[in-house]
Amino acid sequence: MTPAELIARKRYGGEHPATEISSLVRMAMDGSMADYQVSAWLMAVTLRGMTTAEATELAFAMRDSGRVLGPDELPQPSVDKHSTGGVGDKTTLVVAPIVVSAGAHMLKMSGRGLGHTGGTIDKLESVPGLRTDLALEDALEQARRCGLAIVCQTPELAPADGRLYALRDVTATVDSIPLIAASIMSKKLAAGARTILLDVKVGRGALLRSLDESRALARLMVGIGQAAGARTEAALTPMDEPLGTAVGNALEVAEAVRTLTGRGEVDQRFRELCLLLAAHALAAAGLATSPVEAYRLAEDRLLSGAAAECFRQMLEAQGGDPRVIEDTDRLPSTGLVHRVRCDRGGLVEAIDALAIGRAAGALGAARQRNGQSIDPAVGIVLHARRGDPVSSGDPLADLHVRREADGEHVAEAVRAAFVVSPMAPAPRPAILELIR
Amino acid sequence: MTPAELIARKRYGGEHPATEISSLVRMAMDGSMADYQVSAWLMAVTLRGMTTAEATELAFAMRDSGRVLGPDELPQPSVDKHSTGGVGDKTTLVVAPIVVSAGAHMLKMSGRGLGHTGGTIDKLESVPGLRTDLALEDALEQARRCGLAIVCQTPELAPADGRLYALRDVTATVDSIPLIAASIMSKKLAAGARTILLDVKVGRGALLRSLDESRALARLMVGIGQAAGARTEAALTPMDEPLGTAVGNALEVAEAVRTLTGRGEVDQRFRELCLLLAAHALAAAGLATSPVEAYRLAEDRLLSGAAAECFRQMLEAQGGDPRVIEDTDRLPSTGLVHRVRCDRGGLVEAIDALAIGRAAGALGAARQRNGQSIDPAVGIVLHARRGDPVSSGDPLADLHVRREADGEHVAEAVRAAFVVSPMAPAPRPAILELIR
Repeated sequence: MTPAELIARKRYGGEHPATEISSLVRMAMDGSMADYQVSAWLMAVTLRGMTTAEATELAFAMRDSGRVLGPDELPQPSVDKHSTGGVGDKTTLVVAPIVVSAGAHMLKMSGRGLGHTGGTIDKLESVPGLRTDLALEDALEQARRCGLAIVCQTPELAPADGRLYALRDVTATVDSIPLIAASIMSKKLAAGARTILLDVKVGRGALLRSLDESRALARLMVGIGQAAGARTEAALTPMDEPLGTAVGNALEVAEAVRTLTGRGEVDQRFRELCLLLAAHALAAAGLATSPVEAYRLAEDRLLSGAAAECFRQMLEAQGGDPRVIEDTDRLPSTGLVHRVRCDRGGLVEAIDALAIGRAAGALGAARQRNGQSIDPAVGIVLHARRGDPVSSGDPLADLHVRREADGEHVAEAVRAAFVVSPMAPAPRPAILELIR
Repeated sequence: MTPAELIARKRYGGEHPATEISSLVRMAMDGSMADYQVSAWLMAVTLRGMTTAEATELAFAMRDSGRVLGPDELPQPSVDKHSTGGVGDKTTLVVAPIVVSAGAHMLKMSGRGLGHTGGTIDKLESVPGLRTDLALEDALEQARRCGLAIVCQTPELAPADGRLYALRDVTATVDSIPLIAASIMSKKLAAGARTILLDVKVGRGALLRSLDESRALARLMVGIGQAAGARTEAALTPMDEPLGTAVGNALEVAEAVRTLTGRGEVDQRFRELCLLLAAHALAAAGLATSPVEAYRLAEDRLLSGAAAECFRQMLEAQGGDPRVIEDTDRLPSTGLVHRVRCDRGGLVEAIDALAIGRAAGALGAARQRNGQSIDPAVGIVLHARRGDPVSSGDPLADLHVRREADGEHVAEAVRAAFVVSPMAPAPRPAILELIR
């Protein structure tokens, strides 16, 4: 089939047989399908959709476009964890050490942040000296030796995903559920973990806002992972409010360290989510015999300091200053805080995650375009949380800024992100649904 | 707005304001919108549609991307005529001389054939010596001097259409009604005629098969033409059966000449359609005071020989051998005919235009890809017409072939294109609807 015939199949709402998907990915990689043809096909997929079988074939074809790590190359049991991204989402920095200190191994490829959501790589790079651009062999060696490595995506794994993603980014075809699912899963499957835990965020601060869409994405990814023989589970978790209290790279690392060590102020809802996600990963990987057992194991790893020690070893292995575990003041700081105060009394009904994410981005914590540099020290620390009673004049948030003017510039947006009302909001579970 | 934002507008089903359409066309021309972005947008338009206002703006923006002929550059009254294309459609070769010999001027830019439909330029080029690649100034001079010039599209007019069309051709986005309408009308409007007659074909052999789609295309084109101040009318005409008896380039020129001169066998339904189309053009251009008057004028131009003389002058002006008017044997011929006979008795209920068009293409009359060469002499002449009684052994068609094997190869497909049944088919009007 010619590229135009392949595009026509999807343009008319047809379903690609498996061989068409694999030949399309091959043609996109060897240049016999031009960029302008790939992008027309991506738009047709975005508007016409894909069946589970098509998305699965696409994920497999992209996985197979580069090196695929086999079970003998990774130390076992191997676990991978992926979040679709949110505001203040530093769960990986807590969940990965818990899971690894409980006996798993994790070689995690992470991304940089774009738009209002942060990226794990950007957060880690705020640790002085830490490197994330490890060669694949070095990252594998580290995962074997100290159990955990969190590094940048390598072009050796799923290069076809990189090629398609670059086109999606500039052709308004990023938010297609089958394309998102195939993109994420192709990279996870190429990285070879036998157990995959997916954290699919739902709400205003998430990639997909509606529960229905997030559920569809989660189901599709779980189906793809299971079709490839990996134990795959997805947790749908809320992303209406920021996660934890810190938004901004070094600020989030500090919060993750406090959560791991139990020293300093710990947001209990964030800690609880990390424990639940870790417990699901441990149960799926066979490292605990029941969900309750897995939760207890996760909590023990936190309380015993084993998880914090695992994180310290990882920082050290990647050249970062391990003393940040004892003293988070070693992380970069602006030394300048602009306090945002409440202008009325009531209960915090909601905190708009998207608005907080954008405000942190405006302070310099996130990039609006690929390749922009970011400031690791800036960000926002929330003082009031959802459900908290507040009075006029109470602190709502601290803006960690480079210049006082930056704080003045976003203060109003941050204040407006807090919805204060006479009514207490309904409690919300840490995990909305578990899909497996 | 960035190209990605423009694409996103259409991807989410929004409507582009006029300024967005014009900036999109400008960016596509100056390269600041990449090919892969233009093609993603074209697919989004194909699947999401366009409002009349959007398609009109697109036609105007593409018209304005190059030179636009003004009313003072063309001799008046100026008429243009366009067919959306069909099998055996040589109407331009008859209608244009009738209209011009009745007092109009016509500078017509035509296309080459692609797929199962022929192109006027390919047909004309079967006349020995005839040139169609005239410079715009030379074509204008000829239209002033002898009233009629039929030449190739020039890249001076509506170059943005050429750029978008090249992408549509290879990205399965050709059959979008607003894109078709904007493409056709941008070229017609750049060519500057004050009166435009559109012949929109409907049926199996047409670009659009359904009456609803053809009507939508016709209405959109008429709306665009009128918005630009040109008197624009569209006739919806049937394209279930081939038009006339000849399909193939030189064979069709010979049929057009017979229809113009009245010498030799003339298909009366084809002649009637030409007279009706010419009459509508003459009435729209103000060269007749009533439709009946216009029809009589058209018929007089045919019977008096004035239309044939006009065609002769045009052939001569473009370097073609004018003696083909007296003697169609001067047109290229294969000298080898393979006769297809009927294998049953009954009435011809239908003749599948698409099948006949493809069979003629298989003989070498049409190109499957741009740039392929074609054989001017090959083609098919139908002996039985819709409604004719036939007996087993009667001739259905003559295949004009280069080698006997070619005839044997397509004979069965041509025989199968004739549906013979005991029932007489219902008569069908020459014009299904007139839209103005």
